[in-house]
Amino acid sequence: MRNKQEIVNALLAARSASPSKQACSFAPVNIALCKYWGKRDAELNLPNTSSLSVTLAPLGTNTTISLIDQADVVLLNCREQQASTPFSRKLVAFLDLFRTKENFYYLVDTENNIPTAAGLASSASGFAALVKALDQLHGWNLSTIELSILARLGSGSACRSIEEGFVEWQAGTRPDGMDSYGILLPERWPDLRLGVLTISTQEKAISSRQAMSITAATSTLYESWPRQVSKDMVSLKKAIAEQNFDLFGETAERNALAMHATMLSSWPPVFYWLSQTVEIAQKIWKLREEGLPLFFTMDAGPNIKLLFLQKNQQEIESQFKDVKVITPFN
Amino acid sequence: MRNKQEIVNALLAARSASPSKQACSFAPVNIALCKYWGKRDAELNLPNTSSLSVTLAPLGTNTTISLIDQADVVLLNCREQQASTPFSRKLVAFLDLFRTKENFYYLVDTENNIPTAAGLASSASGFAALVKALDQLHGWNLSTIELSILARLGSGSACRSIEEGFVEWQAGTRPDGMDSYGILLPERWPDLRLGVLTISTQEKAISSRQAMSITAATSTLYESWPRQVSKDMVSLKKAIAEQNFDLFGETAERNALAMHATMLSSWPPVFYWLSQTVEIAQKIWKLREEGLPLFFTMDAGPNIKLLFLQKNQQEIESQFKDVKVITPFN
Repeated sequence: MRNKQEIVNALLAARSASPSKQACSFAPVNIALCKYWGKRDAELNLPNTSSLSVTLAPLGTNTTISLIDQADVVLLNCREQQASTPFSRKLVAFLDLFRTKENFYYLVDTENNIPTAAGLASSASGFAALVKALDQLHGWNLSTIELSILARLGSGSACRSIEEGFVEWQAGTRPDGMDSYGILLPERWPDLRLGVLTISTQEKAISSRQAMSITAATSTLYESWPRQVSKDMVSLKKAIAEQNFDLFGETAERNALAMHATMLSSWPPVFYWLSQTVEIAQKIWKLREEGLPLFFTMDAGPNIKLLFLQKNQQEIESQFKDVKVITPFN
Repeated sequence: MRNKQEIVNALLAARSASPSKQACSFAPVNIALCKYWGKRDAELNLPNTSSLSVTLAPLGTNTTISLIDQADVVLLNCREQQASTPFSRKLVAFLDLFRTKENFYYLVDTENNIPTAAGLASSASGFAALVKALDQLHGWNLSTIELSILARLGSGSACRSIEEGFVEWQAGTRPDGMDSYGILLPERWPDLRLGVLTISTQEKAISSRQAMSITAATSTLYESWPRQVSKDMVSLKKAIAEQNFDLFGETAERNALAMHATMLSSWPPVFYWLSQTVEIAQKIWKLREEGLPLFFTMDAGPNIKLLFLQKNQQEIESQFKDVKVITPFN
């Protein structure tokens, strides 16, 4: 059982479909503290390693879905999307997995309340919200594990956006991925703050998906990445359990830098840093040397996300005028 | 046999000392195409892996040495150096290895003809020239292998500056390092050009020696570095033998980037890149995408050294106004 349709069929086999007219659901964006970087199965979005993230509600996606008679209709932030757009095509291909008869079409209305300038990806919250809405619409009553597996089929990291808080995506070992889903950690961390510094909102020349694949295929240093992740997962879970912020920040930062290091050592080299990224990183390192408990993480892009505690928020807002502060456990 | 003095004694044991009054020698700087990064023995400067460089004569060090009666005198570029300077202290500590009676002092006159702004290290050429001058002064008649071993005791990469051309420093496996020295490759490459782009001449906050040691101690990705080097050494030797410039440039660039990647993934992170480094790297990648056969290498610092062929020199000089072009095989 190795393709998406077979996984979906297996999950929905025993479900009685009792569709409503319309359903609506929300899912938060998430930011990885230990990154998802490299796939063992590109079709099913199965990762080489586990990863760990924190969700950033109320930032995320609200999706309303209904069954309609004719062709699919896709709305994004109140605007109808042409069928030829990448957004529509990806969404419609995903919906294809759930159609049961020919005249079975969806109207999908997606609202992202993530400021474009925040440099936060919306595909995770988008697929998570869509899966939750589909579940409601059809009355399947899937478990959070099943929802997480379905969301992963849309976008890998979407499996970490089904529940809110710290979520571990356990890599799993099964070829069908039935053991590869997000698990909510019990801990909350109300004092934790995330500061988004947007350096560029231009579309990336190389997508995360491509970068991940080039890296895994060509970087010799990537061979050590699974060992990096094993260590970082242990440290992060310990840091979260003990609310040890130095360990938390250090581990998240070194994990992100190691991910960028694997890209830098791939061929052709993939390097998302812009000159401003370097300047801000140097500034963070200098402030930390001077005693400020400030760390950062980055995804596959040039933007920086600061990690700090509530007690240092004022100092950080004065050091970084453009920072947008997020409270993950609001 | 594990300290410098014992190695020196062993090498000089059978030598009849027939000193001249004065000796003078030259050694070139070298730039690594496959980097020396990480030591298996810090006292003897024994590397974890082999490395490969090209010398850049006539850039290098001219050293004149004589025996004098009182205390050591150290001149650098015609200026007497205080005994307390790092330069003097390192030099005098090295000379200590060669003194045979109490009133045995040296006058060392070192001239570096490397423009300070070239961002090329002078310690390799400095120790290589010093060892060759000492050999002449004392009439030891050491072999190039023995000279290379002695130079390594001063500064690791100095063992690659005894002879001119492509030099492989074979890592060796012996604890005493007697099999760890530079070997001249037979090939020359007259069309090869190196372009120095100096971004900063400021002293580095973290020395190469420190960076190497932090990386080897803390970077998980560094565990893959020996495998990176094994591959790159094979590719570079093949590229040099076949004068295959694309393979040559690609291998040198990916090796340098992988070295910087190991630093980026260490803790605390060591990152020598400045914003201008990023801008120039992006420009090189863009020009290459457009078809220009241009690659680069970097040492443990922010400066960039372009690699290209004579036929593209004009284009490169017009793209990089400040480039200083070097012809390694003049």
